[in-house]
Amino acid sequence: MTPKNSRNIPVVRNVLEANARSAEQLRALFREKGILVLNLISSPGSGKTSFLERTLRELKDELRMAVIEGDPQTINDAERVSSAGADAVVQINTEGGCHLNAAMTAEALSRIDLENLDVIFIENVGNLVCPAEFDLGEDMKVNLLSVTEGDDKPEKYPLIFSLSKVVILNKTDLLPYVDFDIEKASALSRSLNPDQINFRLSCRTGEGFTAWLDFLKSTAAAKKAAAS
Amino acid sequence: MTPKNSRNIPVVRNVLEANARSAEQLRALFREKGILVLNLISSPGSGKTSFLERTLRELKDELRMAVIEGDPQTINDAERVSSAGADAVVQINTEGGCHLNAAMTAEALSRIDLENLDVIFIENVGNLVCPAEFDLGEDMKVNLLSVTEGDDKPEKYPLIFSLSKVVILNKTDLLPYVDFDIEKASALSRSLNPDQINFRLSCRTGEGFTAWLDFLKSTAAAKKAAAS
Repeated sequence: MTPKNSRNIPVVRNVLEANARSAEQLRALFREKGILVLNLISSPGSGKTSFLERTLRELKDELRMAVIEGDPQTINDAERVSSAGADAVVQINTEGGCHLNAAMTAEALSRIDLENLDVIFIENVGNLVCPAEFDLGEDMKVNLLSVTEGDDKPEKYPLIFSLSKVVILNKTDLLPYVDFDIEKASALSRSLNPDQINFRLSCRTGEGFTAWLDFLKSTAAAKKAAAS
Repeated sequence: MTPKNSRNIPVVRNVLEANARSAEQLRALFREKGILVLNLISSPGSGKTSFLERTLRELKDELRMAVIEGDPQTINDAERVSSAGADAVVQINTEGGCHLNAAMTAEALSRIDLENLDVIFIENVGNLVCPAEFDLGEDMKVNLLSVTEGDDKPEKYPLIFSLSKVVILNKTDLLPYVDFDIEKASALSRSLNPDQINFRLSCRTGEGFTAWLDFLKSTAAAKKAAAS
């Protein structure tokens, strides 16, 4: 996101500062409403949408959840999460843009009834680099790493792994068929952020999913309690 | 790469125009030397480095090949391709940047002896969005899509699929374990660029690799012949 062209640097800084101000306004709004907001970030194809679908299906009778879907094009993902039981879904098409920002998020929020919501998932554009730099006012970044990718990803993309409160090591059902050292990946990731929580799971088989759902429920309850 | 902030647009245009001028200079240099240049683009974890390793190993006695490695951090990939038999390797660490540009490529080229080279592979930063916009003077973009990602990726990231002369449908050894319609993915991709060539292969088993190697050898020979 930051071209190494000296003429461009001041402008990019302005963009990031303006974004940070908007993000703080969003954070205050989410705090007031007691809504837990998760910013989902990963490479394209790491399984963000399948992860959301399963989470929505499992918890739709317990939590009221909305989804903001970011994609360069299409509404495929919005249709999928809507079918899975989201209470509200808004699609943002960035028209080629490589990340969501706080202004886009605010625009999407204006289409959602925030009363009585427990959780908002923001599925960012599939990209491990640029989304890391743009705060959306979220409580935490949730970074998905599929075991079909390399186990040295945290070393190669340190910013996003250091900023992620939660890392999901996804597609564990494929571990027998790939060369991926899950202990190494997890250790590298946590070395960049010792407070980080890692979950190992498969959205396909459900293996490991309960621990994630329990974490989500308790975190959402804590956010709601703090607002009341 | 293009924030939707109106104050920023002119600056981004300047960057792209300056990049296009530098890319044309590189293209003229590659034409004069008869060097085939491939810009490898994909999501993080689609297998660009494994693809390069196998290509280098299979052809190191037939072609003289150099690699420019782009990563936000680390020299892991440069070490891998160096071991695989590249005649020259230069690592560009973008320090968090989301794509390579022509100026970075020119800087890397200054460290490579261009005499007697047949092919230069430029492994771009793992990112399906921003690298699409930056011409590096290459003959063609080669886009890798792993079958562990979604088969609707071409629809979601149309710019890079429309600009790619070659799309590699990679990790076909994992097809039995994932829900990926390879015919659909290929048709979607070619609908965005009817002249596009698709190869289906596995870098792990070698399945489908010969067709790719034959294409690379004949394309490199044609570029060399045109220069002499």
